[in-house]
Amino acid sequence: MQAAIDVARKGKTPFGAVLTMGDELFAEAANQTKALNDPTAHAELLAIRKLAEHLRKTDLSGFTLYTTCEPCPMCMSAAIWAKIDLVIYGCSIDTISGYMPQIRLKSHELAMLTTHKIEVIGNIMSEECEKLLKDFS
Amino acid sequence: MQAAIDVARKGKTPFGAVLTMGDELFAEAANQTKALNDPTAHAELLAIRKLAEHLRKTDLSGFTLYTTCEPCPMCMSAAIWAKIDLVIYGCSIDTISGYMPQIRLKSHELAMLTTHKIEVIGNIMSEECEKLLKDFS
Repeated sequence: MQAAIDVARKGKTPFGAVLTMGDELFAEAANQTKALNDPTAHAELLAIRKLAEHLRKTDLSGFTLYTTCEPCPMCMSAAIWAKIDLVIYGCSIDTISGYMPQIRLKSHELAMLTTHKIEVIGNIMSEECEKLLKDFS
Repeated sequence: MQAAIDVARKGKTPFGAVLTMGDELFAEAANQTKALNDPTAHAELLAIRKLAEHLRKTDLSGFTLYTTCEPCPMCMSAAIWAKIDLVIYGCSIDTISGYMPQIRLKSHELAMLTTHKIEVIGNIMSEECEKLLKDFS
């Protein structure tokens, strides 16, 4: 999670994401919606796209997604389509909603709506992650 | 919707999407997940990214998204983040689920979970759109 926080802070945004397997970091991204003029350029989506392109496959089974803020339904669905095994987030959508409009669907609720098994663990280093929201939103 | 069907058929995929304002077509895309090794390269997401990049802004207020198949939560959320006004789809998620695994969340249900107002109209030319599923999935 510290790596996700670092990439967010470097990008001057509350949103950072990394993809790992075991102890190794395979991809990282910060939110770039404004820089790229791309409403879909959330940190999680960019990290998934980057790793899939690098590995030349859409199936990222075995990878874990760490993200500073709970994934919105766009990013959580992207993790499901990529067959990611585990999502670990910092701040919850409820916390983020205090700073900016959100789509109010919890990621673990979305995870239950499909056949792919994906585990979600939340509120990891949440104070450090909320500090990003305070500093950059 | 015929334009969305045409772009899907040209791409040999069940999934085509176009963005319009008034009578004018501004962007079109077919699903390219396999071609691009990108699990997020759904037709709707690609069309949104294409138009936002072209217009150099993330706000696509005033545009209508036509898509051959009901948007998954990833694409519907992308439409919400892009502030799209109206989504018109062909086949429903229930129909698509007969052909491939889906995330079982109706787009109009997702639309109710946020403050941005987005209208959803479904089952337009749904037989022609299901024919795409029969031909290409």
